[in-house]
Amino acid sequence: MSSSPIPEAREVKPAEEGMEALRMDEEGKDDDKVTPWSVSAGSATGVDYDKLIAKFGCRKMTQELIDRIVKMTGKPAHPMLRRGMIFAHRDIEVMLKRKEEGKPFFLYTGRGASSGSLHLGHLVPFILTKYLQDAFDMTDDEKYLWKDLKVDEAKKMAKENIKDIISVGFDPEKTFIFTNFDYMCPPFYENVVKVWKCVTTNQSRAIFGFTNEDSMGKSAFPAIESAPCFSSSFPHIFGKRIDIPCLVPCAIDQDPYFRMTRDVAPRLKYPKPSLIFSTFLPALQGAQTKMNASEPLSCIFINDTPKQIKNKINREAFSGGQPTVEEHRQKGGNCDVDISFQFLKFFLDDDDQLEQIRQDYTSGKMLTGELKQLAIAEVQRVIGEVAERRKQVTDATVEEFTKIRPLAYKY
Amino acid sequence: MSSSPIPEAREVKPAEEGMEALRMDEEGKDDDKVTPWSVSAGSATGVDYDKLIAKFGCRKMTQELIDRIVKMTGKPAHPMLRRGMIFAHRDIEVMLKRKEEGKPFFLYTGRGASSGSLHLGHLVPFILTKYLQDAFDMTDDEKYLWKDLKVDEAKKMAKENIKDIISVGFDPEKTFIFTNFDYMCPPFYENVVKVWKCVTTNQSRAIFGFTNEDSMGKSAFPAIESAPCFSSSFPHIFGKRIDIPCLVPCAIDQDPYFRMTRDVAPRLKYPKPSLIFSTFLPALQGAQTKMNASEPLSCIFINDTPKQIKNKINREAFSGGQPTVEEHRQKGGNCDVDISFQFLKFFLDDDDQLEQIRQDYTSGKMLTGELKQLAIAEVQRVIGEVAERRKQVTDATVEEFTKIRPLAYKY
Repeated sequence: MSSSPIPEAREVKPAEEGMEALRMDEEGKDDDKVTPWSVSAGSATGVDYDKLIAKFGCRKMTQELIDRIVKMTGKPAHPMLRRGMIFAHRDIEVMLKRKEEGKPFFLYTGRGASSGSLHLGHLVPFILTKYLQDAFDMTDDEKYLWKDLKVDEAKKMAKENIKDIISVGFDPEKTFIFTNFDYMCPPFYENVVKVWKCVTTNQSRAIFGFTNEDSMGKSAFPAIESAPCFSSSFPHIFGKRIDIPCLVPCAIDQDPYFRMTRDVAPRLKYPKPSLIFSTFLPALQGAQTKMNASEPLSCIFINDTPKQIKNKINREAFSGGQPTVEEHRQKGGNCDVDISFQFLKFFLDDDDQLEQIRQDYTSGKMLTGELKQLAIAEVQRVIGEVAERRKQVTDATVEEFTKIRPLAYKY
Repeated sequence: MSSSPIPEAREVKPAEEGMEALRMDEEGKDDDKVTPWSVSAGSATGVDYDKLIAKFGCRKMTQELIDRIVKMTGKPAHPMLRRGMIFAHRDIEVMLKRKEEGKPFFLYTGRGASSGSLHLGHLVPFILTKYLQDAFDMTDDEKYLWKDLKVDEAKKMAKENIKDIISVGFDPEKTFIFTNFDYMCPPFYENVVKVWKCVTTNQSRAIFGFTNEDSMGKSAFPAIESAPCFSSSFPHIFGKRIDIPCLVPCAIDQDPYFRMTRDVAPRLKYPKPSLIFSTFLPALQGAQTKMNASEPLSCIFINDTPKQIKNKINREAFSGGQPTVEEHRQKGGNCDVDISFQFLKFFLDDDDQLEQIRQDYTSGKMLTGELKQLAIAEVQRVIGEVAERRKQVTDATVEEFTKIRPLAYKY
């Protein structure tokens, strides 16, 4: 990962789009492995996102597109957009054009329910979605299918996760939060069945790498993640028979679902969803993998106290600094592998300050302890804001967001 | 097929129950091929049902069980039950015992939507269900997944089929008719997902013979046929959290779905469904296969006129008679392969009359033309009764049967 605003992609021919184009787990081709279920990078600087763009056949987020977004929204670009963490897209231009023409689109993002609190990495697509504003999803059924869970446990987890998500600051007038278990209804199911019919088991295996030992549910699930991309799944939200296209902000590992969806959409006479992809928030131990709730020490959780945040970053955050102060002053630190610096890159708003920190740490002027102090303060601020809102979120708030009702939007 | 009331099964060791026990399409073992999608028999007398009992691992319907049903219901056994067309079951005793103890069970049967009118063979499980009384299902989604159909076409076909089914004479107070497309809701979906999780792709392939070229929907579908066996799929019908067991009357080709369901039920802490199986109503051309709507000449449809019924039986119904009158008088006819006789066996209520016909045709006293006359009259009567009721069935009647509401039952 470079700290330059928008790193230039190397010249790599992008893969063709479409279901047949590639399989997720092309092991052996490179050391990065990115699937919806696990992420591991071959290098301490994390996943090579330029390679991933080429491999997945998506497009690089260019400065020109960012400028267009800034101009259109009249607001500064989100730090993640300015700094290359929103690094790729599929057909974002289609949505920008619609916006310029005063035509509607909707946002759809989601996550699999996880036990306990969400962590900082889970927040990234929601922070991005909030920045863009929204209608979104949570897959309690997915976690039930993939994990050793009871349905009630999955539902309970989903409810707690919804509270965390609401705490990112979504507008209840414009946001419909649903879980697959609770929302499943004829219009949604009809789109699930339509997607099912378009994709063969062969194609689904090639895209997702399912095996014969996997449950029937796993191979059925991709259509359930796919169907909410089609506005006719939500007649009570959008009105019947209106095909409003969808923009999906998500981490790049979810691309297989939407590659499949984009392949299927024209055959169902639905608009293709557009996508914008974020990079992964690295685990505390290093960018070889992302934060993973099942390894609690790799994560900062929304319900971590300021003290826990401080201790976790001080003890666990992988450092790009040198073993001794003398050596650090002499050789300088490596921001590209330093997790504290990565956190600042994700969350610190001030570009000038970030650049100053980068220079000072790289030159050795700033010590690892000092850098960690800054990261601790910034992460405490982000989590603190969410935690503050979280206190206000009750079951009634969840009801407000999950109630089936028309959203406040005009077009 | 023999015309003796209940043919004795040969001594064949039944297959073990359970998903791993066998695959549907064990070709090469014998000449009969019976799957949910096609039926073909190696012999003119049709499928060897005793072999099928052994192969599928179900149990023979015994005279003792029939006597128990008669005693319990205080009504004469249905002709199909008396004559071995309801030839097998799984755990029917469990339901009889419940009935004796005043405990409830519900009936679930269904069919895939088919274009145009239903045919006589389609009616068999519904006639049987009506005899038993009910709550049942229609799989518009299945036909959409298996055939080259649009969703709206499948739904429209389903609606017309529902009208045909209602015309069998069901009681709207005790019957809930649903289509998967229209009924799909959280409690139903929750059971679908639970079944999905219990069955691996390997098992599903072994049971149903799916290949990699089949759509994702086909491999997802078995759980959707399975879930209505669990009363918690219908909280508004049965009340929440009440596990009422289910008895499924169906043709034997549907057994794979319910073998899977019975295997899964204990793991979900649900009662296993019991089953009673009917034989196939033979095609006009002979008992090597069953009536098949996509070969209209093989079928008698509910909307066939008396004249069409007459012409079809006269022209198409395979005869067990001899080529010339002289030869027939001398050698006699073969009731076991004669389709007119099979129709009488399915529908003629009078056992003495049926036995007289059998003797007269076998001895050569009765000619093929005379036998066909009798079959025509009987089929005209059965279809006529349904057609008469069909005239009264409107969209409002469909609404009455498909409305989600508690059924009138006491326990």
